[in-house]
Amino acid sequence: MSKLSSGGNVSQAVVRRLSRYYRHLHEMLQEDVHRISSQKLADRLGLTASQIRQDLNCFGGFGQQGYGYNVEILLREIGGILGVRRGLAAILIGVGNMGRALCNNFDFSWAGIRLIGIFDNNPDVVGSTVGGFTVQAIERLDAFAERRRPDIAVLTLPRELAPAMAERLTRLSVRGLWNFTGADLHLSIEGAAVENVNFADSLLTLSYRVGELL
Amino acid sequence: MSKLSSGGNVSQAVVRRLSRYYRHLHEMLQEDVHRISSQKLADRLGLTASQIRQDLNCFGGFGQQGYGYNVEILLREIGGILGVRRGLAAILIGVGNMGRALCNNFDFSWAGIRLIGIFDNNPDVVGSTVGGFTVQAIERLDAFAERRRPDIAVLTLPRELAPAMAERLTRLSVRGLWNFTGADLHLSIEGAAVENVNFADSLLTLSYRVGELL
Repeated sequence: MSKLSSGGNVSQAVVRRLSRYYRHLHEMLQEDVHRISSQKLADRLGLTASQIRQDLNCFGGFGQQGYGYNVEILLREIGGILGVRRGLAAILIGVGNMGRALCNNFDFSWAGIRLIGIFDNNPDVVGSTVGGFTVQAIERLDAFAERRRPDIAVLTLPRELAPAMAERLTRLSVRGLWNFTGADLHLSIEGAAVENVNFADSLLTLSYRVGELL
Repeated sequence: MSKLSSGGNVSQAVVRRLSRYYRHLHEMLQEDVHRISSQKLADRLGLTASQIRQDLNCFGGFGQQGYGYNVEILLREIGGILGVRRGLAAILIGVGNMGRALCNNFDFSWAGIRLIGIFDNNPDVVGSTVGGFTVQAIERLDAFAERRRPDIAVLTLPRELAPAMAERLTRLSVRGLWNFTGADLHLSIEGAAVENVNFADSLLTLSYRVGELL
């Protein structure tokens, strides 16, 4: 048992880095790379080799001096910590452009998540097929959730509807909200983890860095 | 001149936090909040008061003991550092679901960015109007860029087309790539800042946090 996995109290920053490691290690296996040095891994992720060693050496003897990391073992260990084998079930609320982009182009299964239902309140959209799913009427949400027990909800509905929907979902025992609405749900929601995908923060960061180049 | 703005070498983590401060301060002004304590600001952002003070006290005397921060001054200072008044111009490449979601629902101007043109290679889409913009044929990109000199390109085209497009754009003197494609452009692109919006990392982070709650 590694230090990271036994503690259960990994900091948010480390979890974020582990997620990036996981994605890159996954890509490496697909590229048939089975062993990698901390320096090469650092180049690939835009980190320093010493940061890589600090993050990964607590996984035990997988990073041997002059030998590199075993990609497969590292992937399995990190995947275990992140919980990708728990097979969490997700629903998506709001089949507008953002919802469609995720349903059509995003591979949930890669992160160990099963998308099990998608919902909208627009009668013109309900009943149509998006990403292989039939869009269900939002009125059916409660009955569906009680029967299928989704762990995670992807919120791609309009921002002003987000707080009430988040409350409804937590009452339905949904434990994680993947929030694309721009509403700051951590202010009001208890008992569920909220991951905000905030495009504005990302664009401001880019703007700053472009300014450094001008 | 604050320590942060004079240096020009703010760490990526600080820039990210400044972006979040900027967004929240902006919202506070809209809510008619003009002064806020470090503790209240911390609650709102999910940070500690001491972290807030550490980040913001270098802006000079705006955070007085028992008095709180002046929201308007702080907003202006942080906006200055992030460069929101430079008025950078952006183009968007790829008017699929993700591109449409951004054109229709995202306020670029809020971050000081002017969207000046959107492009696609699909003849069925070219000529249609999305978010107030007429979609231009990708063949017109080079002539457009030479005339209008965009600073930033939003990449919402398919992943496999991203590396070649990124190269083309940097040849056209685009200095920032806001990358939604999932391709790891920092591996190959020089001379431009790349901000990757990676949904997979975000979902894995949520998955981990949901696991802590189960």
